[in-house]
This record gives sequence, C-alpha cells and structure tokens, in this order.
Amino acid sequence: MTIQEYMAARQEFFNLELKNFLPHPDSCPEKLLEAMKYSLYAGGKRLRPILLFAAAEVCGGKLDAALPHAVALEMVHTYSLIHDDLPAMDDDDLRRGKPSSHKVFGEATAILAGDALLTHAFSVAAKGVHEDPQRRLAAVAELAKAAGPVGMVAGQAMDIEQGKKDASSVNDIHRCKTGALIKAAVRIGAIISGAGARVIHGLTQYADSLGLAYQIADDILDTTATIDQLGKNPGSDERKGKDTFVTVHGIEGARIMLAAETSRAIKALSNQEGDYTLLEELAQYLGSRGE
Amino acid sequence: MTIQEYMAARQEFFNLELKNFLPHPDSCPEKLLEAMKYSLYAGGKRLRPILLFAAAEVCGGKLDAALPHAVALEMVHTYSLIHDDLPAMDDDDLRRGKPSSHKVFGEATAILAGDALLTHAFSVAAKGVHEDPQRRLAAVAELAKAAGPVGMVAGQAMDIEQGKKDASSVNDIHRCKTGALIKAAVRIGAIISGAGARVIHGLTQYADSLGLAYQIADDILDTTATIDQLGKNPGSDERKGKDTFVTVHGIEGARIMLAAETSRAIKALSNQEGDYTLLEELAQYLGSRGE
Repeated sequence: MTIQEYMAARQEFFNLELKNFLPHPDSCPEKLLEAMKYSLYAGGKRLRPILLFAAAEVCGGKLDAALPHAVALEMVHTYSLIHDDLPAMDDDDLRRGKPSSHKVFGEATAILAGDALLTHAFSVAAKGVHEDPQRRLAAVAELAKAAGPVGMVAGQAMDIEQGKKDASSVNDIHRCKTGALIKAAVRIGAIISGAGARVIHGLTQYADSLGLAYQIADDILDTTATIDQLGKNPGSDERKGKDTFVTVHGIEGARIMLAAETSRAIKALSNQEGDYTLLEELAQYLGSRGE
Repeated sequence: MTIQEYMAARQEFFNLELKNFLPHPDSCPEKLLEAMKYSLYAGGKRLRPILLFAAAEVCGGKLDAALPHAVALEMVHTYSLIHDDLPAMDDDDLRRGKPSSHKVFGEATAILAGDALLTHAFSVAAKGVHEDPQRRLAAVAELAKAAGPVGMVAGQAMDIEQGKKDASSVNDIHRCKTGALIKAAVRIGAIISGAGARVIHGLTQYADSLGLAYQIADDILDTTATIDQLGKNPGSDERKGKDTFVTVHGIEGARIMLAAETSRAIKALSNQEGDYTLLEELAQYLGSRGE
C-alpha cells in the first residue's frame, strides 16, 4: 500500500464512521445540526484524523479505539475554521471551495455551530467507557490543552494582533495555531494506544517538526497555487498584510526550511525502536506539497 | 449556618481558589488572559459552583475533589455569557454591571476569550488524575453534554430563531439554555462524590425543577428589578421582543409557576434516604428571589 493509498483508506473509514458521532437529530435544533454538518463535510483532507490513526497504528493500537479521538480532533479543527472565518476575525468568504459558514447560515449560527462542535468534541472523546479510562482522560486533557488558551486559541489571538511580525513571532503563531493540533493528533494516537513515555517523547519531536513543515508548505501553496487547488482565495494572507513564512523568509528560504523540518521530523523517529515507516512516509508526502 | 452564610462561604472558597486554575501567564497571550479574567471576575454569583459543592456535600463528597469541576462549570457558564452578548447574538453592552467583553476588548478577542474559557474548562476538568478516573471522565462527559448541541448551545440556537414563541417552546429554550448547566452542576457534584444511580436520579429531578424555577425568577426580576439590582438593563428581553415566562404567562402566572417548581424540586428530595436539607434550603432561597 502506498502512502497515498493509506491516506485514502483512512480518510474513507473516517468519513464513513463520522455520522455515528453526530448529535441525534431529535435532540439538536435542525439549523444548528445542519451548520455543524455543512462544515464537517465540506471536503477536509482529514489530515489530523489520519495522523492520529497512523500514530495509533505504529504504537500497536486499534483503529476502533482511536476513532472517537480522531472524530473529536476533527470537530475541534472544524470549529476553529468556522470561527477564524468570521467577519470579526479573518473575514473569509470562502473555505474549502465553498462559502464559509457565516455566509450560508449567518453570523449567529456560525458562532453557535463552532461552539457546538468544540463542546461536542469533548462529549465524543469522553463518552465511550469501554476501555482504559485513564488513557481516555489523558487524551481529553491533551485535546483541551492543544486547542485552548496555551495552544490553538493562543495562536489565533497572536495572529490577530496588529503590527509587523518578525521570524520568531511567525514561528510562535504557527507553532500554536497549526502545530498544536497536529502535535495533539500524534500524541493522542500514541496515548490511547498505551505507548510509553520514551516513544511519546520521540513522536512529540516528530510532530513538532511535522506541524511546522505543514504550515510552511501551506504558506508556499498560498502564493503559488490556484483557487481550484486551494479551495480558497490564494494570496489572501498577503492581501491582508499577514506575515507568513514566505513573506518573512522569501519563497526559496521557506522551501529550505520546509526541507529541513521534514528531515528533522524523520530523524526524530530514527532513534526509536520499532517500525515507524508509516510516519516517515507521511512526513515525506506532506513535505512534498510545498516543493 | 444559614443558607446565605453557606452560599457566601462557598463563594469565597471558590473565588480564592479560581486563580489556581487559570492558564499560566507565560504561555497565554496577555490580552487573551486579561479578557478571560475580566469576565471570570466580573462578579458572578457563583450559583453553579455553589450548587455543585452542595450536591457533592450531601452525597458525602469532598470540596477539594469537587473544586476543579466547579471551576470548569463556571468557565463554561462565563464563556456562554460572553458569546451571548456578542453583536451577532443578543447584542448586549452591559453584563453584571460592567461593559460586556466585546465592548472592552473588541469582538475578535471576545470570541476568542469565550473559545478559550470553554476549551480550558475541559482541561481543568480532565487534568487532575489523583482520584477515580472513571468518575472524572463521567463528569467531563456530563459537562460536555450539558453545554453542547443537545444542551446549552441548543437553547441559544432556539432562542435566536425568529418568530413568536408559545409556552412550550419558551419552556424548551430555558430547559436547555439555563436548565442544562444547573442540572449538570447538581449531577456532577453527585457523580464525583460516587453517588449511586438512585440518588443521581432523584437529584436530577430536583435539578430539573430548580433550573426552571431559576429561569422563571430571572424573567420576573427582569421586569420588576432596577438596573442596579440586575447589573444589566432591565426589560431588555421585552424590548428585543423575546418571549419569556412573564410575557407568555403574565407576572402572576409566572409567580404561581415559580412556587410550583420550587415545591416540585423539594418534593423530589423527600423520597431519598439521607439528609438533603442543604439542597432544600437552596431551592427555597432561589425561589424567594422572584416572589
């Protein structure tokens, strides 16, 4: 199985199972549920669930045990996109090739759909009680930390602050804003599969570099790809005067950083016992997006 | 100790301990943390934490074990007030006698402060691992269910929908919007203290009636109290054309309902073994607010 086939298979599994974790239509207002589903099914690549599955599998875990946590993570990611697109935030009309949530449902429902997805994620992550509650609790704590005021929300708060950003603050913003959830994907996959502290430490280093590489590749694509390839308006960061890895380091500088972070991710795995080919190939594949 | 003294003592304990559960200033952007604290310390009555403590105590639980869950619940309640006040939602400029979050920090930071409080609540509820993880996990699940798309967010979604509401839908809205978190306060207090299914069932009935009584009393106060007593503009629901227990049933009808729900709450306790005087007195005290 090539890495593309692996990703397609896990994406398909995730998309098939996702509906089983939505709130029941009888107990959730129709428009709210519609708005939650609109963004959840807007064609995301499911990168975070795939990473969580891959980390679980290399640690000997089962897909079924990882699934609720993959769903919770994707719900948190989806809420963050809805809130980031709001007029008071980044004011983006287009997301994944479709009108953003507030353009379709109005601002109030978009805010609530985001709140609902964020909250429901913790319901999904906590509810199943058929396995080790300590691991499940650790996974909930990991998700909350990665998504909250010392993680993703911190990144967005730094991002909306006015003023020119230097290389170090662009790094900090993306380490929180994108990196925190990517790191959580890898760590939660390992935690829920019962990985030991040494393995989790190695995988965390891997995920740190992978998250940075992912954001650098995104910034490169934002300047080089077309609207069809991106599913959103290209160059939108630049138009808003946002500083990115490309505006700070130039396109060639960003490409060099991308290659370096990808190598660093793979190197973090090489000190570990066990077979981490799957995670290596994922890093190589994601790194190749920005080449 | 009178019930007022009990409430004041638990409120003081809560307010003293709360600071220990905030994110560390070194890892959280300054303005974001400031906005979180502004709303958390805006002078809330801490009713939900007090109810959680009281339920824990009547079930033989310890205050220290209940504390993180009381903090998490108050963070969720506080986030909901910040988001409800936003211009796209209820557009309220005043909350607890002070300018609402978006008037002080701007809309973007208010949205993020709400997101941060909601997410951090689950970090607080999940993180401590010194006690039974199964109970802690059940408490996290309870909080997420009460606050999410079949609970509080559902209530707000129904509330912002256009059109005249009848008695049944006013009831549904408030059962979700206010009632769900009040029920969660009582249930989480019981769950974390290891109460059995029979006790939890009785306390749930109590909390259902208490939550309804609390909202009816709020609606009565909204028409009869002054701005100083309320800490927000009185009559604001009526001016916005919102239907409340008072607009639907009249002030006398609402008072009769309030007395009936308070009695029902107390009656739900009378079938239980054990001493529930504390919860009875709380119901009587809260009921007397709208007399």
